[in-house]
Amino acid sequence: MSTSRCTTRVVAVCGGVGGAKLALGLYRVLAPDTLTVVGNTGDDFEHLGLHISPDLDTVLYTLSGLADRERGWGRSDESWDFMEALAELGGEDWFRLGDRDLALHVLRTQRLRESTALSAFTAGIARRLGIHARILPMSDDPVRTIVDTSEGLLPFQRYFVQRRCEPTVRRILFDGAATARGQADAVAALRSHATDAIVICPSNPYLSVDPILAVPTIRAALKAASAPIIAVSPIIGGQAVKGPTAKIMAELGVEATSATIAAHYAGLIDGLVIDPSDGAEAATIKLPIELAPTLMRDLDDRKTLARRVLDFAARLASERAPGYRAVHREAR
Amino acid sequence: MSTSRCTTRVVAVCGGVGGAKLALGLYRVLAPDTLTVVGNTGDDFEHLGLHISPDLDTVLYTLSGLADRERGWGRSDESWDFMEALAELGGEDWFRLGDRDLALHVLRTQRLRESTALSAFTAGIARRLGIHARILPMSDDPVRTIVDTSEGLLPFQRYFVQRRCEPTVRRILFDGAATARGQADAVAALRSHATDAIVICPSNPYLSVDPILAVPTIRAALKAASAPIIAVSPIIGGQAVKGPTAKIMAELGVEATSATIAAHYAGLIDGLVIDPSDGAEAATIKLPIELAPTLMRDLDDRKTLARRVLDFAARLASERAPGYRAVHREAR
Repeated sequence: MSTSRCTTRVVAVCGGVGGAKLALGLYRVLAPDTLTVVGNTGDDFEHLGLHISPDLDTVLYTLSGLADRERGWGRSDESWDFMEALAELGGEDWFRLGDRDLALHVLRTQRLRESTALSAFTAGIARRLGIHARILPMSDDPVRTIVDTSEGLLPFQRYFVQRRCEPTVRRILFDGAATARGQADAVAALRSHATDAIVICPSNPYLSVDPILAVPTIRAALKAASAPIIAVSPIIGGQAVKGPTAKIMAELGVEATSATIAAHYAGLIDGLVIDPSDGAEAATIKLPIELAPTLMRDLDDRKTLARRVLDFAARLASERAPGYRAVHREAR
Repeated sequence: MSTSRCTTRVVAVCGGVGGAKLALGLYRVLAPDTLTVVGNTGDDFEHLGLHISPDLDTVLYTLSGLADRERGWGRSDESWDFMEALAELGGEDWFRLGDRDLALHVLRTQRLRESTALSAFTAGIARRLGIHARILPMSDDPVRTIVDTSEGLLPFQRYFVQRRCEPTVRRILFDGAATARGQADAVAALRSHATDAIVICPSNPYLSVDPILAVPTIRAALKAASAPIIAVSPIIGGQAVKGPTAKIMAELGVEATSATIAAHYAGLIDGLVIDPSDGAEAATIKLPIELAPTLMRDLDDRKTLARRVLDFAARLASERAPGYRAVHREAR
């Protein structure tokens, strides 16, 4: 990592687990207070009367080192006495909440009821957890991802957790997105000339990134951004590393390839990082491509990929003429 | 215990820990479905956005066998991971909530927000916990005990838990009581001719029983009750077994004696049970007195006292002429 990298300012657009892995890599290779994560709140929901923000929490727990690596969600060193007692009392137990994790949901619910904005609450928690990055919700207004399936319309968590992504997906809707205001600091960071790179992390594009892009001022800020926008494909060899991305792509009638991901983000991104195993696809994609291992098994993998993404962004930026506006972005 | 005891129908008016001990004794010596507990909700409060009903929960946990005996509140076999995480995140941690206990508060909060009445929720939980007694809040309307102290007005739990009863008590107020409607089943049980005894359990009269009596229709039902009303003094040898009763009595300018308890409940009760160690006071009390050991160390003590109370009530009832209305109760 070059020394110049240390002061690179980066905005990561990030959903849950897969995206958070790269966000952690970026966090660890960047200087403190240079990373802004714009997180997905489309899968937020009210459950047991609590406001739960699964993707923001995954980012908080991942960057603070509290995340459980094996489970892929929630905190490590977790206990489940609350869930057990809840089931005994007849409460809904399909969405599992650990005893420690619950503290975050109870506190968030309390603060939101007191009219604290989700962004302010999240910033406070990030500070408490010692995180030297900004973690921002895409919007402080409610946006809810609804999956139109073979079993009808399902709120995201009902589809994702309760029905384990089994129903066939027809369409994905982002209720509230059209009128949601992009979180002001997130919009400013995306538009800022001080931002050196914008990274769309390898989260599920349809379920986890699209809700962010569906917020009009976020989308407009990306369109207007002076920093190069790099996406990292979540597809490796026709498969998603984890989760239902490939299954959903099949159900939506598209091939589960990085070329499809490129097409999905066409007009918005300046470059795509794909795994070397999909190198043959590079020729078919009309975008600058970086081949870099995208499977992140450990922290070194995450940091290595982060450096490759940042180098790629720096290269794209340097190739531009002064006053460059992203050539690959089109109005659409 | 006589066989006739098995079908005795009893209403217990009960606050927290001390009262719940006798309620358990009554529960264990009575036939299933013959005990109704009318519980105090004056110490209910909203904390961390959750609706907490400490006295009702103490009764629920005590009758179901889930209560922690040593601690005196909450559940046995409890864990505290939620509290630990909450403190790390900067949440208020002066009121301790165990991980299992929390399930009840989260569920209650959710159901009350969905407009379920506290009485209906409590009944459902009692059923889930296999309790064959009715546990009723004194009212489904909010009543809040406020302690007027040397440090100003303190909501009950702030006084009791956060300030550990240290401020000097001047007065105790029951906000909302005057307009609260007595819970309908509670009022009916108190008034019912099928009720054989009404027992005011040895909870703190000022903090835990008075809020119940402050609900106009509950007080009127007690006044009109055909069943004998027996109170059990919480004072033994000038001391309360546990808690701040004696301290509060001193601060309110009354002697911490069973005679004071008798005077406090005068006009409402038909008899008072006091500990044999306070037998000398009996002559000064203008009420039928039963001397019975009121210190309840174990389940046998609880059951023995329960039987003595029920025998006392049966004796008072048998001494009455047909059509008797309580001779010791006066309008006041």
